[in-house]
Amino acid sequence: MSTPPDPLTAVRPAIAALPDSGIVELVKYGGDRPGLIPLWVGEGDQPTPEFICRAALRALEAGQTFYTRQRGIPPLRQALAGYLTRLHGRAIDEERVYVVGAGMQAIMLSLQAILDAGEEVVVPSPAWPNIAAAVQILGGVVRPVPLDFSDNGWSCDLEQLLAACGPRTKALVLNSPGNPTGWVMTAEEVRRVLDFARARGLWVVADEVYNRMVYDADSAPSFLSAATPEDRVLAVNSFSKNWAMTGWRMGWITAPPALGQIFENLVQYNTSGVATFLQPAAAAALEEGEPTVRALRERCRQGRDLVCRRMAGWPRVRLAPPAGAFYLFFAVEGEDDSMALAKRLVDQANVGLAPGSAFGPGGERFLCLCFACSPERLSEALDRLEPVLGA
Amino acid sequence: MSTPPDPLTAVRPAIAALPDSGIVELVKYGGDRPGLIPLWVGEGDQPTPEFICRAALRALEAGQTFYTRQRGIPPLRQALAGYLTRLHGRAIDEERVYVVGAGMQAIMLSLQAILDAGEEVVVPSPAWPNIAAAVQILGGVVRPVPLDFSDNGWSCDLEQLLAACGPRTKALVLNSPGNPTGWVMTAEEVRRVLDFARARGLWVVADEVYNRMVYDADSAPSFLSAATPEDRVLAVNSFSKNWAMTGWRMGWITAPPALGQIFENLVQYNTSGVATFLQPAAAAALEEGEPTVRALRERCRQGRDLVCRRMAGWPRVRLAPPAGAFYLFFAVEGEDDSMALAKRLVDQANVGLAPGSAFGPGGERFLCLCFACSPERLSEALDRLEPVLGA
Repeated sequence: MSTPPDPLTAVRPAIAALPDSGIVELVKYGGDRPGLIPLWVGEGDQPTPEFICRAALRALEAGQTFYTRQRGIPPLRQALAGYLTRLHGRAIDEERVYVVGAGMQAIMLSLQAILDAGEEVVVPSPAWPNIAAAVQILGGVVRPVPLDFSDNGWSCDLEQLLAACGPRTKALVLNSPGNPTGWVMTAEEVRRVLDFARARGLWVVADEVYNRMVYDADSAPSFLSAATPEDRVLAVNSFSKNWAMTGWRMGWITAPPALGQIFENLVQYNTSGVATFLQPAAAAALEEGEPTVRALRERCRQGRDLVCRRMAGWPRVRLAPPAGAFYLFFAVEGEDDSMALAKRLVDQANVGLAPGSAFGPGGERFLCLCFACSPERLSEALDRLEPVLGA
Repeated sequence: MSTPPDPLTAVRPAIAALPDSGIVELVKYGGDRPGLIPLWVGEGDQPTPEFICRAALRALEAGQTFYTRQRGIPPLRQALAGYLTRLHGRAIDEERVYVVGAGMQAIMLSLQAILDAGEEVVVPSPAWPNIAAAVQILGGVVRPVPLDFSDNGWSCDLEQLLAACGPRTKALVLNSPGNPTGWVMTAEEVRRVLDFARARGLWVVADEVYNRMVYDADSAPSFLSAATPEDRVLAVNSFSKNWAMTGWRMGWITAPPALGQIFENLVQYNTSGVATFLQPAAAAALEEGEPTVRALRERCRQGRDLVCRRMAGWPRVRLAPPAGAFYLFFAVEGEDDSMALAKRLVDQANVGLAPGSAFGPGGERFLCLCFACSPERLSEALDRLEPVLGA
């Protein structure tokens, strides 16, 4: 018998080169410290509301444990259509929505549908690193466009964004409100990008997972409000953030109606659908969950205000209150290695923040703090951080 | 405003060309007929056992609704390691197993790890069509190798299989016991393929989803028994078939230990994990589910024997009792268009069988009948089929 060679060398180069999540690296570094306050990942500190869980329990007890429809069960698709129509002030038919396993899968399947190996996508940066990783898995190329940070917060130079689209560009992937920056596109910016994409035949993949987490409106400007059903817009969303369902792994895609069979096939050949008995819970979230969304948003607003108020007084910290999402992405003068700093904060403050370097170009000098949790917890975290960051 | 062009034309050619599932086409054709007996998809007629559901209910009620580990929760990985070690008579460490969302996702992630666009995989045919579709999504090429059908059942000419591996071949994808043919590799065949793969530096993706559904042993010969941990073997499996959990969408991959971070990343960037509170149910299935596996297998054996006994007397039917899986894949003389025939059986017999054409080259003249259900239901289906197929 010959000695088998190292199997790692036989993995695709693009896959072997995938970055480990910098957030996960830090979680592994500090996740087991007793008493650590974790503010590094994008989830709150409250479990899923009981009325949502109950819908899943009922379906499971009723024996709904068989294969299901690849596009999602009709009651959930109807609930999604109703929710989106109410939210965006524009009729969105249930035939345009497809239930998938998480916002992450919504991004992956959207990219599978449109991106051939060697083609490019344009992505504002810093950004949630999973977007670039999904592109890399498909053999595509990310062209990052730097977002700008000032005392007014994060913004995007649209001229620069659109100028980055070249002959190999297939899509813009826009996450607004953005993780981690809190950048929120204006309705006018949405309109301009859409006009540009139409003129150039580009796709827009609109990651609108945080579209209810804005602090001066009920929802952020959406490509679904601006676009016609036939526009090349794939809007991805998730149940995770708005309804405290991060552990459920459910999301959805809103797409042109002509792409129904495309997404049915992509679901079929990737995971063959979302667990049957979980889907009624998602429908319950949409139909009875508005108080939940508002309460979570209010909690986030309080968290944001508390964190910004206290940290504004720390001389080395540069921050601006974010307009959306639930992260403070801030810089610390004199600290250029965010991973080293994040590890030091674990060691010295027993608080977990995510290193900005995990979010790609432009993030190196920043830290990310998720404020979607209780004021008590945040206050305790700030008390611990102050000796290190506030001096 | 310019008129947007048809978005379907802007989808990747490989994706627009994906075959719709021929099984799904038939389900859409006949799925709503009152009283139809559906024997077309691979699942039984019994819901998930209560002790499995209860473990999920408990976890959900305990508030386990947060983000989870990308490789799977430790108790489930330990349960998998114990189960596989018992089954294969060879120590399989928990560090080698990764929990994913369905056997389908196990195949997709395995292929993502190893297959670059333009590379080939060799697949015996007829086969579960989702394997070829996953390859196509990744820009790969399937080289089908025909299985042989005789009065002794389905078999594979190994010389022909191995000769099909050329300079662009990256892997063999082998589904044994096979859907839909019931073909089961012998231990000697497993050994020969493994030796060949070693010598040529090829991967083996072993789809062992039906490995407990064999009728002359407790489990089918497995690549996990034959291979060392470092061999280029990716074994994919699922909770769906053995424990009546089709609607749960859970599976697992067993891989070389060096690939841990690879699969963690692939899970992260495809779906970001499997729902937290479902995983204790899978652990319960492994730890307390042997009576369930044996009862389901016994039910399948009875179904197989019943169907084969009755249909053996139908003059136009050519069949051989399958050694594994839970399908009868049989031919009908004088019928060359299996989709037309399957639709006729819906219309005239109100029974749903899957058309062999859905399973790729070599399947055109066959029909697929899933016998994983009650004798009463099967008898009724046979009574209805006999006037059409038995004359």
